[in-house]
Amino acid sequence: MVAGGLVTLAKNETSVMIENKFIHHVYFWLKNADSKEDRAKLIEGLKKLSKVTTIKNFHIGQPADTSRDVIDRSYAISWFVLFDNAADQASYQTDPIHLKFVEECAHLWTKVIVYDSVDAKS
Amino acid sequence: MVAGGLVTLAKNETSVMIENKFIHHVYFWLKNADSKEDRAKLIEGLKKLSKVTTIKNFHIGQPADTSRDVIDRSYAISWFVLFDNAADQASYQTDPIHLKFVEECAHLWTKVIVYDSVDAKS
Repeated sequence: MVAGGLVTLAKNETSVMIENKFIHHVYFWLKNADSKEDRAKLIEGLKKLSKVTTIKNFHIGQPADTSRDVIDRSYAISWFVLFDNAADQASYQTDPIHLKFVEECAHLWTKVIVYDSVDAKS
Repeated sequence: MVAGGLVTLAKNETSVMIENKFIHHVYFWLKNADSKEDRAKLIEGLKKLSKVTTIKNFHIGQPADTSRDVIDRSYAISWFVLFDNAADQASYQTDPIHLKFVEECAHLWTKVIVYDSVDAKS
């Protein structure tokens, strides 16, 4: 079922496919990997960043306790964002809240990888 | 608001944080990167894989049309899954449907990166 623009899952419903959305997933590696203070600053910055109005859903993550050879758990913090479409993601990039986040937090990380995904076309 | 175990977004509501979930995001690089047939086989395999009952939401993706130096758009297909918790993800790994997917599709890819994320603790 779809409500309020987001795919939702009713009780006892089977898996639901996210469709016609734009997924933006970012992984951050901290310059000072052992600094709890820098980590907290980045999390705080992402919380502020989540106020960008084109963001539908977001998740601030850290590596889970899983470990297999294909799993990369070397990043410090992950940032998942669901947008309605590519235009909303583009607008987010130049949103003043995003620009302020980069200004305040870019010194914290040494590496960033971004994966932007849309529905796979067969 | 939260309904049916999944965070949902009401109309005019601001961004909603996904909390207490387990995010499993996989990126696949195809052995035959230019083979439309292999690509279609992988997509078909993921559609079957989505029937695993512990999966709440999933997305089968391809790189969006974005390009900045931090964006990795070299993968062919992405596979995003939202689980309720780590136990459900662990159960998925040994689910017969998952084992069959690996058996049928593993020959298609040359590289896989998995990022498993849970809520960041400050």
